[in-house]
Amino acid sequence: MAARAEAVTRRLDELLPPADGPRGRVVEAMRYSALSGGKRLRPFLVMESARLFGVDRDNALTCAAAVEMIHCYSLIHDDLPAMDDSDLRRGRATVHTAFDEATAILAGDGLLTEAFAVVADPRCHGDPAVRAELAAGLAAAAGAAGMVGGQMIDMAPERAAFDLEGITRLQRLKTGALITFSCEAGAILGRAPADRRAALRAYADDLGLAFQIVDDLLDCESTPEELGKPTGQDQALGKATFPGLLGAETARARARELIERACGRLAIFAEKPEILEQTARFVLERRF
Amino acid sequence: MAARAEAVTRRLDELLPPADGPRGRVVEAMRYSALSGGKRLRPFLVMESARLFGVDRDNALTCAAAVEMIHCYSLIHDDLPAMDDSDLRRGRATVHTAFDEATAILAGDGLLTEAFAVVADPRCHGDPAVRAELAAGLAAAAGAAGMVGGQMIDMAPERAAFDLEGITRLQRLKTGALITFSCEAGAILGRAPADRRAALRAYADDLGLAFQIVDDLLDCESTPEELGKPTGQDQALGKATFPGLLGAETARARARELIERACGRLAIFAEKPEILEQTARFVLERRF
Repeated sequence: MAARAEAVTRRLDELLPPADGPRGRVVEAMRYSALSGGKRLRPFLVMESARLFGVDRDNALTCAAAVEMIHCYSLIHDDLPAMDDSDLRRGRATVHTAFDEATAILAGDGLLTEAFAVVADPRCHGDPAVRAELAAGLAAAAGAAGMVGGQMIDMAPERAAFDLEGITRLQRLKTGALITFSCEAGAILGRAPADRRAALRAYADDLGLAFQIVDDLLDCESTPEELGKPTGQDQALGKATFPGLLGAETARARARELIERACGRLAIFAEKPEILEQTARFVLERRF
Repeated sequence: MAARAEAVTRRLDELLPPADGPRGRVVEAMRYSALSGGKRLRPFLVMESARLFGVDRDNALTCAAAVEMIHCYSLIHDDLPAMDDSDLRRGRATVHTAFDEATAILAGDGLLTEAFAVVADPRCHGDPAVRAELAAGLAAAAGAAGMVGGQMIDMAPERAAFDLEGITRLQRLKTGALITFSCEAGAILGRAPADRRAALRAYADDLGLAFQIVDDLLDCESTPEELGKPTGQDQALGKATFPGLLGAETARARARELIERACGRLAIFAEKPEILEQTARFVLERRF
């Protein structure tokens, strides 16, 4: 996974424009965010899903980088003072802290836009039908019916008092949609049969929910140094979380069930996608 | 033009999701911005360019709505307190004033994303190669090498002291790129020959620069009531403008020359594109 993460960082470095000229500042901020490390879970899912269908590695890596651009844009905008007002991300100053608010808004806009430039470019895939489908899928995951809608719900005054159903629905939009698209992107790149694509979607849906439950657990149990971002924020704001509603032990058991079910979804593949199974277990056991 | 503007508003209304459910607030803000009127110059250019190549009117209208979504997103984000901090747009409260800052950031993100969903959808064009090319062109016009880069330059401390070359380069990114893409989109939809497409680009480049010069003139010569937005802001901030550098009379003469040259670019078409000529004259003579 670390080797893959490095390959993603290199591809992001190649795809992003150089930070020179009078507009250099916004590109510098885009690069600061996108080249800052992180687990690179979403790109990893794109690449491993694509590998199941024999997709060219170079195409998969380019698409994976586009998905990471969308993830980075969402982190920049979610961290803004008007949103979660966070000053730490991936172990360093958030973009609006390291630069300024205007630059952070524009850097997010730039990364969001660039992701579509990347998937629509022939270097991502030779077949324009694949490129158009990737753009459509990425937009659906990122837009008002996905991440944008999820962040809006997360900011709502009624958010604090959400029940289990409420926070599950919120998670499906805010983090689940892009995780699911990451797996689906591999299937789109590989022109996978509908049943394989549906299996990957179901795997990713379960994985995404487990990911969020573990995120909530880490948020209560870890230090900012371990996570590279502020902790205990939801609790401080009185926001409902999975461990808050279920208790830590039940929440962890629920995540474990989801991961087992996710792995079960992969039974349709003749050859066992072992790395996707291991990824699911990593999501459960990760400490960051 | 007014009839076309209404058709664009209706199409935007059809394409945007309904503002209900827990994420309703962000969709409401997207609709507030996109359905608020305006000249709809960019969609008009998409439709008139497309008409030259016999493009289906319904396809052109859908693509035109996507271009307007990009324009509206840029207005929302440019108006934010961290950017130009404007409270009036198209004669009413800006999105962050009518809603709040977080909702305005998300509504901009949502419209930007939705534009790509629209051009990547088969309802925009039956040929996936056309859809992928539209997405790529839209991203190039909107991203760091276009609008995002232009807004960054407009915020730079050295912006105030720009010379004519500096503000011309700024304009080409900030407003010119999307105006040029609007005309190019018609050519892409119509799979136009390269020389016709280049002619439309050249027409739009001249038109876009003239548009900005007239914008600067109106900014000094009009009232907020006439323009539906604050006036005299560049002057108040000591920012270089075309009339500021050239004098109002020379600036107007320069805009007139550009409009003549823009119309001359259309000579390549066997049948004179009269409406595009009239549009160019409208850009020169408009009072809002």
